Amino acid sequence: MKITNEKFLKIYNQETEKIELLISNLFKNKKPKSLYEPCSYLLSGGGKRLRPFLVLISAKASGGNFKEVYNAAIGIELLHNFTLAHDDIMDNSDLRRGRLTLHKKYDVNTAILAGDNLIAIAYKLLLMDSKKNIKQIIETFTNGIIEVCEGQSLDKEFELKENVTINEYKTMIYKKTAALAEMSCAIGSLIVNSNKKNIKAVSDFGKYLGMAFQIQDDLLDITADQEKFGKKIGSDLIEGKKTFLFLTALKNAKDQNDISLLNNVILNKGIKKEEVDMYKNLYEKLGVLKAAKKEIEKYTKLALRSLDTLPNNEGKELMIHLANSLINRYK
Amino acid sequence: MKITNEKFLKIYNQETEKIELLISNLFKNKKPKSLYEPCSYLLSGGGKRLRPFLVLISAKASGGNFKEVYNAAIGIELLHNFTLAHDDIMDNSDLRRGRLTLHKKYDVNTAILAGDNLIAIAYKLLLMDSKKNIKQIIETFTNGIIEVCEGQSLDKEFELKENVTINEYKTMIYKKTAALAEMSCAIGSLIVNSNKKNIKAVSDFGKYLGMAFQIQDDLLDITADQEKFGKKIGSDLIEGKKTFLFLTALKNAKDQNDISLLNNVILNKGIKKEEVDMYKNLYEKLGVLKAAKKEIEKYTKLALRSLDTLPNNEGKELMIHLANSLINRYK
Repeated sequence: MKITNEKFLKIYNQETEKIELLISNLFKNKKPKSLYEPCSYLLSGGGKRLRPFLVLISAKASGGNFKEVYNAAIGIELLHNFTLAHDDIMDNSDLRRGRLTLHKKYDVNTAILAGDNLIAIAYKLLLMDSKKNIKQIIETFTNGIIEVCEGQSLDKEFELKENVTINEYKTMIYKKTAALAEMSCAIGSLIVNSNKKNIKAVSDFGKYLGMAFQIQDDLLDITADQEKFGKKIGSDLIEGKKTFLFLTALKNAKDQNDISLLNNVILNKGIKKEEVDMYKNLYEKLGVLKAAKKEIEKYTKLALRSLDTLPNNEGKELMIHLANSLINRYK
Repeated sequence: MKITNEKFLKIYNQETEKIELLISNLFKNKKPKSLYEPCSYLLSGGGKRLRPFLVLISAKASGGNFKEVYNAAIGIELLHNFTLAHDDIMDNSDLRRGRLTLHKKYDVNTAILAGDNLIAIAYKLLLMDSKKNIKQIIETFTNGIIEVCEGQSLDKEFELKENVTINEYKTMIYKKTAALAEMSCAIGSLIVNSNKKNIKAVSDFGKYLGMAFQIQDDLLDITADQEKFGKKIGSDLIEGKKTFLFLTALKNAKDQNDISLLNNVILNKGIKKEEVDMYKNLYEKLGVLKAAKKEIEKYTKLALRSLDTLPNNEGKELMIHLANSLINRYK
């Protein structure tokens, strides 16, 4: 009874369209305009709506229905968008998904305030779907926000820190990315009042999927088809980011020439656009791309294995299919 | 059985000291340092700790005890400090209570992130004291945050808007200041599981006290003893803020010369330091200071009257005493 790709896409498209519709109605005619128009702009930027979809399928895999968790799902999308708006200020990014970032479209003050407001509205939406386990739901959600803030803080710390270990990097991406996916799944399961075993199963799925997703993002930065990926190839290297790839390269490099090439990335806080190909070859030579693929597979397997204890149902099948299709994205 | 001033001060000092201690332990040795040191700096800036005190005395006036609400009380102080940190960025303020503002001590990115994190930690603290009515408690808290964001947004809108009415101004200060005082009182009462009548009584008290407090802040800006007030006298006028005083002056002015003097404040986005005395005299002549005093008294009376339905107890006496002493501050 494995779900077909056609069926998966039908459900995914149907549900994300519903989510788009709900989101587009959230801020209609709300005042003050100077607060809600920017919120609306931010949320209309599209994206895969993966986190709300995780809420939906986790609820279903835990024995509940999509319709029990729509508000919570869009609440989590709002929360995710708050992090994007504030991160974009901190990273001084001009563009996101081909549009001006919120603080470039308006100004920094507007983007700060819209982000703040979205946190509160996210709680409001979450409460709308919370009938039982309210304390645990709010606690889980709140801890997720704290993880994200700590993760962003570590990310910024690492920009200045010369020696970052792969383990430190993993802690950072767990907090910055995986914790929110873990929380999304936990919330879906908690709202439909599932049992501890199921809640743990879907939460672990979200956590490991988040780790796989982030390391794959690091990998795609250098290997993806630029058009499909939507970002400039090699931008992590250009910006001198200490990604899984870069840290693995540093760990694997033995040749003095290779080591100094890598140290140059740190010293110069990035490389030139023209050097991307050379570094890609270096990564290849040092077995970095292979190591990253292995790591992504490891986390994807862990995610899938987490679901073993779940009863078989469509929700579980959707989760399995999602994990498998994410690992194959942009290939 | 009216409480003496000595007794009031003894309790106020004792409880705010306890709050200081709890706050000072919150972030000790917490990592990442780049996130928690700024949180710690922000919270160590002192202040009257009025909002947490409101939580405590509302709990007591509603039949509960201080010790049931300490975590919630400091949660609300954290929330208040988040608003200060982000407002200071938006207002480009260098100093607060004689110290560098958070974004000047560190940088804007750090202040954004510390503020974000404080919102979540505030929820966490609030949950620690929430045993019953959890949904209503979180809802009340969340609505308070939304009001504050909307209020800040209106405040920024009014800087650019030429015609602001006194009613619009009142809506703004309700959202920006009074809603948080109202929420503080509601939370204290909700946590000790009081009845609807008591919750409404203390919430209204907080709301009206907040209104009185803000209009008094506007008045003190021009009439206070600079040393006691801690801010430069006339700074609202210097910055061209559309306060209750300024809007009342505009409403009362009939003489063409007075009207153009006031319009100049708007046109030039403020006045010179040397002009403060002249405008103070104009305010006096237009009956503005008198009108403000009347308004403060009106709201203070409304606050006190809200408490009529409460049973007589020490908590209620503390609330009455607080309202009366706030109205007499810095005289």
